[in-house]
Amino acid sequence: MDRPFYEPKALREFIQRVFEKFGVHPEDALLAADVLAYSDEHGIDSHGIARLETYYDLMRDGRINPRPELKVIRQKGSVATVDGDNGLGLVIGPKCMELAMEKAATHGSGWISVCNTNHYGAAGYYPAMALPKDLIGMSMTNTTKGVVPFNGIEKKLGTNPIAIAFPTDAEPPIMIDMASSTVAYGKVEIAHRESNEVPLGWCIDKEGNPTTSPERMMQGGALLPLGSDKDGSGHKGYCLATMVDVLSAVLSGANWGPFAIPFAINVRVGENEQVGKGIGHFFGAWDIEGFRDIQSFKSSMDAWIREMRSTASLPGTLPVLIPGDPERMAFEERMKSGIPLNQKVIDSLERLSLETSIPLPKPL
Amino acid sequence: MDRPFYEPKALREFIQRVFEKFGVHPEDALLAADVLAYSDEHGIDSHGIARLETYYDLMRDGRINPRPELKVIRQKGSVATVDGDNGLGLVIGPKCMELAMEKAATHGSGWISVCNTNHYGAAGYYPAMALPKDLIGMSMTNTTKGVVPFNGIEKKLGTNPIAIAFPTDAEPPIMIDMASSTVAYGKVEIAHRESNEVPLGWCIDKEGNPTTSPERMMQGGALLPLGSDKDGSGHKGYCLATMVDVLSAVLSGANWGPFAIPFAINVRVGENEQVGKGIGHFFGAWDIEGFRDIQSFKSSMDAWIREMRSTASLPGTLPVLIPGDPERMAFEERMKSGIPLNQKVIDSLERLSLETSIPLPKPL
Repeated sequence: MDRPFYEPKALREFIQRVFEKFGVHPEDALLAADVLAYSDEHGIDSHGIARLETYYDLMRDGRINPRPELKVIRQKGSVATVDGDNGLGLVIGPKCMELAMEKAATHGSGWISVCNTNHYGAAGYYPAMALPKDLIGMSMTNTTKGVVPFNGIEKKLGTNPIAIAFPTDAEPPIMIDMASSTVAYGKVEIAHRESNEVPLGWCIDKEGNPTTSPERMMQGGALLPLGSDKDGSGHKGYCLATMVDVLSAVLSGANWGPFAIPFAINVRVGENEQVGKGIGHFFGAWDIEGFRDIQSFKSSMDAWIREMRSTASLPGTLPVLIPGDPERMAFEERMKSGIPLNQKVIDSLERLSLETSIPLPKPL
Repeated sequence: MDRPFYEPKALREFIQRVFEKFGVHPEDALLAADVLAYSDEHGIDSHGIARLETYYDLMRDGRINPRPELKVIRQKGSVATVDGDNGLGLVIGPKCMELAMEKAATHGSGWISVCNTNHYGAAGYYPAMALPKDLIGMSMTNTTKGVVPFNGIEKKLGTNPIAIAFPTDAEPPIMIDMASSTVAYGKVEIAHRESNEVPLGWCIDKEGNPTTSPERMMQGGALLPLGSDKDGSGHKGYCLATMVDVLSAVLSGANWGPFAIPFAINVRVGENEQVGKGIGHFFGAWDIEGFRDIQSFKSSMDAWIREMRSTASLPGTLPVLIPGDPERMAFEERMKSGIPLNQKVIDSLERLSLETSIPLPKPL
């Protein structure tokens, strides 16, 4: 299916203006647009402008605070907890990552657990902020439930991603951004849209049976943790999701596990389903210079990358890549050709355009 | 196969005396014995006294320094790099974890990257040290190569484990200790010993073909990263192994990736195969009180655990467990019945007993 292409800058401006419409401060709207645009520009189609409609609906319904006042509610040296005042995760996220990086500059590392926040876009955006400062950056977030604990048949955890980035010298940086489930929900959605089956190991149906049918997963089924089943060590994906949930939500006093607030306008948050405030994020930064001379570190990183790239690869597969390569390739392509949007996303943006009188950019 | 049982305390004393024989300081030998005994007592048979023979042979050959002088070679606030002076990882590990915890007490968190060290036993031992202090503890280590990068057919990374533990109140603590490969090498070895096949997804043969034959894996094949293949998101296990390798070895100046020194007496370390010193570990601790009141945190952890345990489980599987449950169950059992050792391990200990004149305890 041919998808029209849009100029990246024009989409950024559209996003920014939509957020401003709700009274989001222009600087914050710029930040939020940057986070969403990062996804579109790096090929992470599930987390970019495709989600603008949901943020829009939540703001229109007063479920997200357009002018949050972030507050450090507790801290000690390198660590702190921030209350996000129910603002956009897209605004709270970059500000808390900045705080983690400031702490790293002073204390060698910085760690911010955040409560009372909302979905923050692609996890990889935040560690990428640390790269120009020669820091190792990290981010995690808990998300709306969609994944079973290992051996369970009820959704109790989110796809809880982990992202970390390492600076390099001549080679491109290593950038890891991965859900702790076998796949993110978006992949099942895409298969459903295209009437494809999915591999066994991605999901179960509502009775807990392994299924290849996206439809059966979507009708009360669930995603499986990374590793999928006993043979694949699915308990390890469950362990990773646990780690993310505790660091992001239990540590900050946010809603953990199945109580993470839904990222969907049609689901109301029941008063007695709240065990904390909002969802939770976790940001970190390490100052490399505190461990090792930065140039030695970067030279070793370059050598590491070249060593991995030199690995003989399976016939019929891609050459061995470095974490971050696929997003980097998408970025280069999209900066040249523009951002392809599918019709469903365009329809959603046209509705927003109509309701806000902000003109949607024309395709290239 | 019936295995004789041994008294845990007697095995500890045997281990300690063997290390002392090489001039390891009695306090250090006690520490090393505690680390190995932790594995045996928690059912992690691959990482306990079964490995004493290898440590012994390496020390006998002068490949490990019995009296290392640990040195902080760089630090800044919450972070530091330690040179382990080529000592036993079993001694360097606990000391560096102590240092991470001291830093957490002062700076809110503590991070120690370690070079010039050797294999450190079970990764889970170290975060367990943090629990009585109400800290979140973490440890990682790179290990001898055995795992392919995703899509690769050459071993370039170790099974690089990640361990993290979270304190609780009335419930038992959450303790995560997982290799970043689908399975640890020990599982393939066990299948081989028992002439069983292994599930597809654990390993490949030397041509890179998926195999269910432990033998074909052991003859030049390799383990696969967690997630196994494209359908299972094997690139995610590769990402985790990358993270562990960089934090443990590139950051500290140890041997990274395929250069991690072999944990085998019959493999000499070639001079020009060294890109750093020894292997690398990474230890961390966060002071929970820096983020949240400790009692609130612990109460939430208890609620989290009860919520997960209440999950309906797949028919025919175990109930939903909490990370750490299997090791805890093994511990309770073994503290009652003793430590079962298989004949191959007993044979190895008898050799050590003969060579050192230290009597091996009799089975119960």
